[in-house]
Amino acid sequence: MKKIKDIRKEIGKIKKEGKIIGFVPTMGYLHKGHISLIRKAKKQSDYVVVSIFVNPTQFGPEEDFERYPRDIKRDIEILKNEKVDLLFNPEVDEMYKEDFKTWVYVDEFSEIFEGKFRPGHFKGVCTVVLKLFNIIQPDKAYFGWKDAQQLIIIKKMVNDLNIPVKIIPCPTIREEDGLASSSRNVYLDERERSKALCLYRALKRIEQLVKKEKIYNREILLKEGRTIIEKEENVELQYLEMVKINDLKKVEKVEKGTIILGAIKIGKIRLIDNLLIKKF
Amino acid sequence: MKKIKDIRKEIGKIKKEGKIIGFVPTMGYLHKGHISLIRKAKKQSDYVVVSIFVNPTQFGPEEDFERYPRDIKRDIEILKNEKVDLLFNPEVDEMYKEDFKTWVYVDEFSEIFEGKFRPGHFKGVCTVVLKLFNIIQPDKAYFGWKDAQQLIIIKKMVNDLNIPVKIIPCPTIREEDGLASSSRNVYLDERERSKALCLYRALKRIEQLVKKEKIYNREILLKEGRTIIEKEENVELQYLEMVKINDLKKVEKVEKGTIILGAIKIGKIRLIDNLLIKKF
Repeated sequence: MKKIKDIRKEIGKIKKEGKIIGFVPTMGYLHKGHISLIRKAKKQSDYVVVSIFVNPTQFGPEEDFERYPRDIKRDIEILKNEKVDLLFNPEVDEMYKEDFKTWVYVDEFSEIFEGKFRPGHFKGVCTVVLKLFNIIQPDKAYFGWKDAQQLIIIKKMVNDLNIPVKIIPCPTIREEDGLASSSRNVYLDERERSKALCLYRALKRIEQLVKKEKIYNREILLKEGRTIIEKEENVELQYLEMVKINDLKKVEKVEKGTIILGAIKIGKIRLIDNLLIKKF
Repeated sequence: MKKIKDIRKEIGKIKKEGKIIGFVPTMGYLHKGHISLIRKAKKQSDYVVVSIFVNPTQFGPEEDFERYPRDIKRDIEILKNEKVDLLFNPEVDEMYKEDFKTWVYVDEFSEIFEGKFRPGHFKGVCTVVLKLFNIIQPDKAYFGWKDAQQLIIIKKMVNDLNIPVKIIPCPTIREEDGLASSSRNVYLDERERSKALCLYRALKRIEQLVKKEKIYNREILLKEGRTIIEKEENVELQYLEMVKINDLKKVEKVEKGTIILGAIKIGKIRLIDNLLIKKF
């Protein structure tokens, strides 16, 4: 369905039946990461809604909005196979009227890491997610840990604004070699693809140092990680940081709820990944 | 009720019964303007919720948050008399946790008129209204024309963010002499109170010029209005403007949906008023 008023009619019916609605917001070009979110939603809800909307307001003017990969036919096949109950795939002008002026943002959390390299990105994300929540009115919404900062920001928005939706975080899904599944992986040629793995290798090395060598010190861990990435030619390390999962503040030593966040750039392609350090 | 979780439990029950929920957000110190909103809500809904919350985030640092008039006992009596079903009167720390960081704002609309004299005011208003909507989940919410810019901004926010609440605008209620009912009128002593009327006189004079003299020209109308206010000693005219009701843009001639917005200051007391020009 492409129209908000059609969705409202449908959702109204479902709500009256007392069904639990699970919602998976996506930008389409679905991969196995999305499918894992959908399957979790199917398990935990009576009725699953997926949205496919490449949201222009979360792309910067120099970014890849126009060339972001799209394949709605293939996506619809996948959704049918997964027995998704409802697809919402609006056009841009259905979501943003010409005189649109209302924005939602999470201070501080939105300015760092991804926000520093993509100014305005999280303002666009929060605004569209809130709009989608208001249209779909789900009981639960599913987000992947792959976009860790996004997940943390959305949880913060939901808490701060008392939005009546439960956010369900889902693990990052990886390709066989460890690369985090992402629609943007399609941009990578074979050589770039093998270089892209250095970020994951750095994260795994840090995890190993923590778990096997019992090294918890921020500087030592990050230095080791950075070295791995910097060895790779034509890869730009944008950030590699060790923070607390709940407030994104830097930590000096690995503690409960520490996450390592990283971003690299290969040519024009930005890739992000992260690793939550559990049991150490 | 003071706790969000108690409200959610209660509202959950009411929703299950399929009842229409009407909501009147207030800052308390209820006057006949509020009562008219409540009565309209009672007529149009099955279950009426009133909130009383003096929202700190919509007051500037130099403004009257601390001394804003409060009388919860008297308010509760009024709500009982009006047979309001539920009162939500949270403490500040129930609405804003220490690490609160999420804000909603409507660009442009929030920067002009009241927004110019009260920077950040409408960001605070939008944020708290959205929070209240998410907590109460009303079908309809009632706002007075007295705060015309606030009403227009909230309607814009609701449209832009697809919030599933119908905004019901209600006419300004006035004292016998024409002064718009406002909790802040209590600040006025007898002399100030009589001076305060000059804004309403200016608005009525403009209305008369339009209706009786068929004068539609912006400059002529506003000049006449300003002259009336400027004659009054110790009254500062902050703005007097003629705008379109839907986008707050200045109009050169009175047309359908024209509103005159004004604000004056008497000593430390700011007062606003407005007049929608109907049938001319």
